[in-house]
Amino acid sequence: MALLGIHLIADFFECDSSVINNIESVEKILTESVIISGATLIKPFFHRFSPQGISGIIVVAESHFSIHTWPEHSAAAVDIFSCGDFNHIAALKLIKEKIKSANNSVVQIARNSIQSNDANNPDLQYKKIIL
Amino acid sequence: MALLGIHLIADFFECDSSVINNIESVEKILTESVIISGATLIKPFFHRFSPQGISGIIVVAESHFSIHTWPEHSAAAVDIFSCGDFNHIAALKLIKEKIKSANNSVVQIARNSIQSNDANNPDLQYKKIIL
Repeated sequence: MALLGIHLIADFFECDSSVINNIESVEKILTESVIISGATLIKPFFHRFSPQGISGIIVVAESHFSIHTWPEHSAAAVDIFSCGDFNHIAALKLIKEKIKSANNSVVQIARNSIQSNDANNPDLQYKKIIL
Repeated sequence: MALLGIHLIADFFECDSSVINNIESVEKILTESVIISGATLIKPFFHRFSPQGISGIIVVAESHFSIHTWPEHSAAAVDIFSCGDFNHIAALKLIKEKIKSANNSVVQIARNSIQSNDANNPDLQYKKIIL
């Protein structure tokens, strides 16, 4: 099977809640992360929920960047899904710095490779990333 | 740490390439999957690449649905990221049926729970889903 892409799943904790509840800030940060990664921006969309929280998606030529924020938990969930060769780690490091996250967990998953039928032992091909 | 959401990572293989290379079909299928799941549609965006392939994102009140297709590989990658309680499995089954996928692999990941520092043994909390 073809490799569909690399998917980085990043959960950020202990963030600056005022930053991640500001739609202009979140859009600027995710856009800068696309630019620093070298990906090609196609279409951004950002939405602020009431009373709080932002969802943002940027479709790029190589797949997508997404962010969802929970200011009430000082948390943000970021996905970078890429079928191209660009600098995902630089993008995540920029996001981590700008949202002032003191704690994170990041894994990289190879999409296409989750094939086991053993529910307790799927051979998910992933690796832990330290930012 | 709070549970940020449930993330379903679904890779579909042996799909009908003519369906997954048709932007109207892909938009209709992903939109129907949002509706059947019970999620609340906020904003859809679909893009067709040249010479082939579709990327589609639907931001929902509960996070997002995304699809990327590779007609040349008869493959599609779908993500459903949800911080709400809706029927993700019905959504994935509908997509599987409509794109006529003969083979798939799906895992469900609890976002917030990837915490180990052991790169070979991260305690990713996931489970295999059989559609």
